[in-house]
Amino acid sequence: MSGGSDAAESRDRSPLRTDLTPIVDAVADADADAFVAVGDRFDDDLRYLTRFAGPDRPSALVVVPVDGAADRAVCCAPSLFREQAEREFVASARERGSDGRADRFHDGVAREVRTERVGDHAGERAAGLVRDLIGAGDDGPETESDGDRTLLVPPSIPHDAAVYLERAGNALASTDAVATARARKTDAELDRLRSVQRAATAGMARAETVLAESEVGDSADESVGEARTEDRRRPPLRWEGAPLTTERLRREVNAVLAARGVRDAGDTAIGAGPSAADLHFVGDDPIRPGETVLIDVSPRGPDGYRGDLARTFVVDGDGGWERRAYLAVESAREVALGEIEPGATAASVHGEAAAELGAYGFDPNAGEGEAGFTHDTGHGVGVSLHESPSLSSGTELRPGHVVAVEPGVYDPDVGGVRLEDVVVVTEDGCELLAEYSFGIVPRERE
Amino acid sequence: MSGGSDAAESRDRSPLRTDLTPIVDAVADADADAFVAVGDRFDDDLRYLTRFAGPDRPSALVVVPVDGAADRAVCCAPSLFREQAEREFVASARERGSDGRADRFHDGVAREVRTERVGDHAGERAAGLVRDLIGAGDDGPETESDGDRTLLVPPSIPHDAAVYLERAGNALASTDAVATARARKTDAELDRLRSVQRAATAGMARAETVLAESEVGDSADESVGEARTEDRRRPPLRWEGAPLTTERLRREVNAVLAARGVRDAGDTAIGAGPSAADLHFVGDDPIRPGETVLIDVSPRGPDGYRGDLARTFVVDGDGGWERRAYLAVESAREVALGEIEPGATAASVHGEAAAELGAYGFDPNAGEGEAGFTHDTGHGVGVSLHESPSLSSGTELRPGHVVAVEPGVYDPDVGGVRLEDVVVVTEDGCELLAEYSFGIVPRERE
Repeated sequence: MSGGSDAAESRDRSPLRTDLTPIVDAVADADADAFVAVGDRFDDDLRYLTRFAGPDRPSALVVVPVDGAADRAVCCAPSLFREQAEREFVASARERGSDGRADRFHDGVAREVRTERVGDHAGERAAGLVRDLIGAGDDGPETESDGDRTLLVPPSIPHDAAVYLERAGNALASTDAVATARARKTDAELDRLRSVQRAATAGMARAETVLAESEVGDSADESVGEARTEDRRRPPLRWEGAPLTTERLRREVNAVLAARGVRDAGDTAIGAGPSAADLHFVGDDPIRPGETVLIDVSPRGPDGYRGDLARTFVVDGDGGWERRAYLAVESAREVALGEIEPGATAASVHGEAAAELGAYGFDPNAGEGEAGFTHDTGHGVGVSLHESPSLSSGTELRPGHVVAVEPGVYDPDVGGVRLEDVVVVTEDGCELLAEYSFGIVPRERE
Repeated sequence: MSGGSDAAESRDRSPLRTDLTPIVDAVADADADAFVAVGDRFDDDLRYLTRFAGPDRPSALVVVPVDGAADRAVCCAPSLFREQAEREFVASARERGSDGRADRFHDGVAREVRTERVGDHAGERAAGLVRDLIGAGDDGPETESDGDRTLLVPPSIPHDAAVYLERAGNALASTDAVATARARKTDAELDRLRSVQRAATAGMARAETVLAESEVGDSADESVGEARTEDRRRPPLRWEGAPLTTERLRREVNAVLAARGVRDAGDTAIGAGPSAADLHFVGDDPIRPGETVLIDVSPRGPDGYRGDLARTFVVDGDGGWERRAYLAVESAREVALGEIEPGATAASVHGEAAAELGAYGFDPNAGEGEAGFTHDTGHGVGVSLHESPSLSSGTELRPGHVVAVEPGVYDPDVGGVRLEDVVVVTEDGCELLAEYSFGIVPRERE
């Protein structure tokens, strides 16, 4: 369980920096005065924009275009977190100029941290910052409403913060500039995404190994005998002397993720038999031979980036529904990956994958609770597990888009099969961020 | 690393149910028409109210008082999560009546899940739900604005959802009823909080054991030699053949948490030497003999409840600053715990602890970046790591409040000492949720 290599690796990496010029440009294009975001550590837009992994109390970010000088970005953080904000938001964005001085910012946007007025609501502090930074027509901080500025805000800014901003004389307009900027990844972001996806493969290898080591259970087990009488299901697998359950298997996976320096983020979903048809099963079910075991591992790395990897196994299967489903999903995956290239629409990728599943006899448009393909073929992956672009929208794929591709078929009475990988769109196709082998029969991988 | 006992334990527990009558009462008291919350899985208010650990897409909850019949609560979930919402929000709140039928709800509030209109924004769906459920003066769904209803909402409801609700003819008023309800824990909640705090003690035992097993490093190590020349700090500890760092130690802790079925939630903060003065250090620093190692473990259990435990150790210390600090903090902790009882104000607990630290010669009101006591004495713990009551407000403590007590002193040039435990306020004092031993010298605990 001793780690360290990933940490060493990360010390040698180029700093993860966000280019704030698309935000500055969005403000200018909308003829607005500033961009304002308010949120806590769970706000992935703010995490992306600031790289500040602050506390569970709100911070604010104000970005202001400045004529004839450097544009400005100010992060208003809780005072106890000033040092961390200085390090993550300001220092990491500095670079040395040709004169060797580290007093310039990589994207030309001057960053600073402020921690004053700690008792005030983050929205109130953001309103004060806007007043300080823009200042035009300002009669001083006593004025309740001092202008008719327009601020761009993310659509889901907290309502109380929005009300503070509006009461201070600002009109709000929502912008999707952050989502658009987030969709295309830089090399440094791809580096983090590859790293966390590799950790996901280590977790998957643990799960597959445990399944490969498991033995077909002894039907003399009493509780199992009862269950069998009731529903003819086979007794659970046994591993290290006890029945194997989805909870035991999940703990094994999560311990490996933790030892690799990433967190499971509550998103290691493992279903077995009917619960494999549940898209995000995190309960405790016995794992039985002959039934599908669907393992979906979506860790979060130290910089916030997410992995997403799913495989499906069957121990001692009889080659029935689950093998046909596996072939169909494997084929749909190939088709979807072959479709991904710059200019392809996300919806066409989904359409091709769905058609392939249909060709294998599975309902490509199954509704909630029905058998077949019930969800989208994929979704963007970045600081959030699900972000732009979705693989069912009309969005055209572009180089740097990172998407999880996850065809699957389900039967609520039987189980589910899903195979999921993350790819980056390249100039002429796509590339897996990390590889993990295929095969419905589990093998020892450690 | 094999687990299982906690899962078995949880299956025998009483269901975790939220009493929605305080929300119904708040609506009635405010002469409002309904309560509406909108949020995703990261919204702890919604998690508490619904027990639905849904996806990262928004759900809505509408609670409506009904004259002469059961009050109603409707959760509007993404359709792929209907089954999970039915199980977590509806089924878990049912109980059998005297006639043996499980058709009543424990708090008399009738719950249902709806998944219609999946393409709509969650705020739009919430507005539609309000129209359906209240209906008075309704001219049908085509009407843009169809009444002057008043809705209670949590202050930080997403702004876009608030705008949808307002455009549909609803006036919004914010309520703190959810925070108030969350502050006082039920027996079932205490059970979960004890369980996750026990997991935190297992993580701490791992960290303490690793420190106890570590050896004072060999100064022949080259990089260490340089560091020593530069700042006279001693070479790092060695553990299992390699230098011990905060990152290695954190991975050890987190793997134990994962194996116990809880997640570290990105909140295992370990600082060493100067970084121990950073309140939430999650970077990678060498751990050196003679310096404080501050370990703060705050896992999240499967039902969402949080633990919070901090201890400080020094390997091969010389009894200087850190030992005085430890004695001061241990004493402040005793004083604070002695102060906690129903009727005591949270602020008085903080005041007593601060005074005790002052009596030991530490600045009880140190500012940002200064030496001394820089933060509050504690905070409520529940579904959120920080919730009501804070231990610096004027709030009177009441039985069922759960608070972390965490006095600490820091010197940015030297290190930090903090000791943190979680207690529940009882009828005549308080009680630790889990015990972990004290002592600045680490011992093997596994």
